[in-house]
Amino acid sequence: MDGVGDRGAETSLSRARTPHLDRLAQAGITGMLHPLGRGIVPGSDTSHLAIFGYDPHVFYKGRGAFEAFGAGLELKDKDVAFRTNFGTVDRNLVVTDRRAGRDPFGLDELYAALNGMRISDITVRVKHTVEHRGALVLSGPQLSAAVSNTDPHEVGVKLLRAKATAPEGEKTALVLNEFTEKAMRILAQHPANKLRTEQGKMPANVVLSRGAGIYFKPPSFAEKYGLKAVCIAGGALYKGAARYVGMDVPDVAGATGTTATDLGAKAAAIQRAVVGYDFVFTHVKGTDACGHDGKADLKRQMIERIDRELIVVVADLFDIIVITGDHSTPPSAKHHTADPVPILFWHADVRPDRATRLCESECMTGGLGQIVGLDIMNLVLDYLGNATMFGE
Amino acid sequence: MDGVGDRGAETSLSRARTPHLDRLAQAGITGMLHPLGRGIVPGSDTSHLAIFGYDPHVFYKGRGAFEAFGAGLELKDKDVAFRTNFGTVDRNLVVTDRRAGRDPFGLDELYAALNGMRISDITVRVKHTVEHRGALVLSGPQLSAAVSNTDPHEVGVKLLRAKATAPEGEKTALVLNEFTEKAMRILAQHPANKLRTEQGKMPANVVLSRGAGIYFKPPSFAEKYGLKAVCIAGGALYKGAARYVGMDVPDVAGATGTTATDLGAKAAAIQRAVVGYDFVFTHVKGTDACGHDGKADLKRQMIERIDRELIVVVADLFDIIVITGDHSTPPSAKHHTADPVPILFWHADVRPDRATRLCESECMTGGLGQIVGLDIMNLVLDYLGNATMFGE
Repeated sequence: MDGVGDRGAETSLSRARTPHLDRLAQAGITGMLHPLGRGIVPGSDTSHLAIFGYDPHVFYKGRGAFEAFGAGLELKDKDVAFRTNFGTVDRNLVVTDRRAGRDPFGLDELYAALNGMRISDITVRVKHTVEHRGALVLSGPQLSAAVSNTDPHEVGVKLLRAKATAPEGEKTALVLNEFTEKAMRILAQHPANKLRTEQGKMPANVVLSRGAGIYFKPPSFAEKYGLKAVCIAGGALYKGAARYVGMDVPDVAGATGTTATDLGAKAAAIQRAVVGYDFVFTHVKGTDACGHDGKADLKRQMIERIDRELIVVVADLFDIIVITGDHSTPPSAKHHTADPVPILFWHADVRPDRATRLCESECMTGGLGQIVGLDIMNLVLDYLGNATMFGE
Repeated sequence: MDGVGDRGAETSLSRARTPHLDRLAQAGITGMLHPLGRGIVPGSDTSHLAIFGYDPHVFYKGRGAFEAFGAGLELKDKDVAFRTNFGTVDRNLVVTDRRAGRDPFGLDELYAALNGMRISDITVRVKHTVEHRGALVLSGPQLSAAVSNTDPHEVGVKLLRAKATAPEGEKTALVLNEFTEKAMRILAQHPANKLRTEQGKMPANVVLSRGAGIYFKPPSFAEKYGLKAVCIAGGALYKGAARYVGMDVPDVAGATGTTATDLGAKAAAIQRAVVGYDFVFTHVKGTDACGHDGKADLKRQMIERIDRELIVVVADLFDIIVITGDHSTPPSAKHHTADPVPILFWHADVRPDRATRLCESECMTGGLGQIVGLDIMNLVLDYLGNATMFGE
């Protein structure tokens, strides 16, 4: 449950009516999770890496690679990936809308017109994800993630020229700038944009790139843990993180990565997944979105929906169930905070503690104590009886 | 509250009547602080560095630099500083009193007679702090803190010759020994010492040096955290630690660093400080002194005074209040111990735990769990909403 932790004496978790979670909490062992360590405010990407057992200080190389994965692009070692928006610029290259009016009309055709472009020895791939968002991947020799954004992150200012942030980024900056210019020429004349303009929509006439990340292949989840793993998620970032560690990531129709997601479809996908997989990672984004929007009551309702529509199903399917979030997003703060996240391990043979609910006030004195993200998979392996002993 | 933690079923904190602390504890979140990590007995200097967020394994270079700072001496990069006592030696250089009878009569004149001495290319500065204590600073090229003490730390034995504890300390040992000899010649003939002898006082005829520390300028508190900080303290060591990290350290008349300190004057200084500063560090030494003296009842009374005269005032002045100690000094042990120290965070938007008092038995199951010194400022920044996210 993304961003599920809150602050205050009463929280979304403590207020929510969650009979199925309660049952797991009563039989399970609980604690508090500091995904990246105490006092460190987790990003979603770094936190998911840590929860999967991949130290983000080693494996986190910028968000672009995760987005590209989530978009379903295949990456090879040393590809460099960016997060992109289709935006709108005026004649003087001043950004008038970073999201081209948030209107996806014709965007797939525009991506198709840019995809596969060659710039000297570099191949450019682009792919649409959701709304105005997409991913851009550069493949070829001597690329680097040491390159700044072309996205100025505000309107009314000029499109930025990418610059190398270290000498090894020079070539990548050149390629990104040349791609951005060529793309503007192609987009300006594309029939899809003429149609957008005729219909009174903003033209999607620029690709704004940010968050350069270089890809290198990490050891897979299966190699690390001997577990065949699958991801049931809607949000591109989480699907990307899962693919990065080698999980299978099927498309789940109705899983949107928003509060409107079809949890029944996710539950059904989980039920299908248990047949062929040892490990099912399920992600629900809606709780975090409510936290960012400051909507405490909607967050509580989202948790109640998760309990009613998802937990009720999974509770009888697995030998081990771990339930937590990747960080806290208190509606009172409206951003990620370093407050630890309640965490619950259910397994037939844990040491049950006194916590009767998965919530901040009960889990803060739970039997697991205060753990970090990198502890989680070690505990899972231990409950499975698959952990490696240190010593004899 | 320096050294505030105790051992035993009942402690100074648990026995003390502290209505204002209780109120903060009930609304706040508590835990146990291991300033330097579990099982490590903290010094006051290293612990304060850690609490300020400066890893003492990186920044602690011997106590001398802190004492010198506290004494108001300006240090430059690579100056080497010592803690000093004026003591008494006999004709054979046997130390007969390490504190010259603890009588400060004439000491300022004696310091003045030694201050500014040149030894080859090294300048020597000395400054009186409190009672028989002072600071000694060497400035010039090729100095090092790899040098042993001249203070034998006991009476009836000879003054020690400083020795290099590593090859780079050779020059510093030579300079310190030459200073010590020259100082003895000057002190022996000084009118202030003749007066002391005529009045039946022990002559202050030797400077005993210990605790070599090399200074280098760390990143300031303001640079690290964006917070303009001030220190309200009496003891030289704590003022030195605060100045070391770039806090402003005004003199507070009546703040003595002893149990006789004027807490009302400190409270008034805090009230003045909130106007111009973002962060106020307040230190009270008396609790620790009672612990060293084995006086449990006095320690309890000191805590009650702090509650009545200081906490009552600060409780309404700040957005965030952190209350703890730098280590435990149980009256039953009479020295610093590795027992963790109760800690309390008060802020309008924490997760209150079940602790109703700041004391060992309640905080040991508090919602913060068991934290270390370096966690504190990260938590403060997170509550302020000023923390930097790792990832996106």
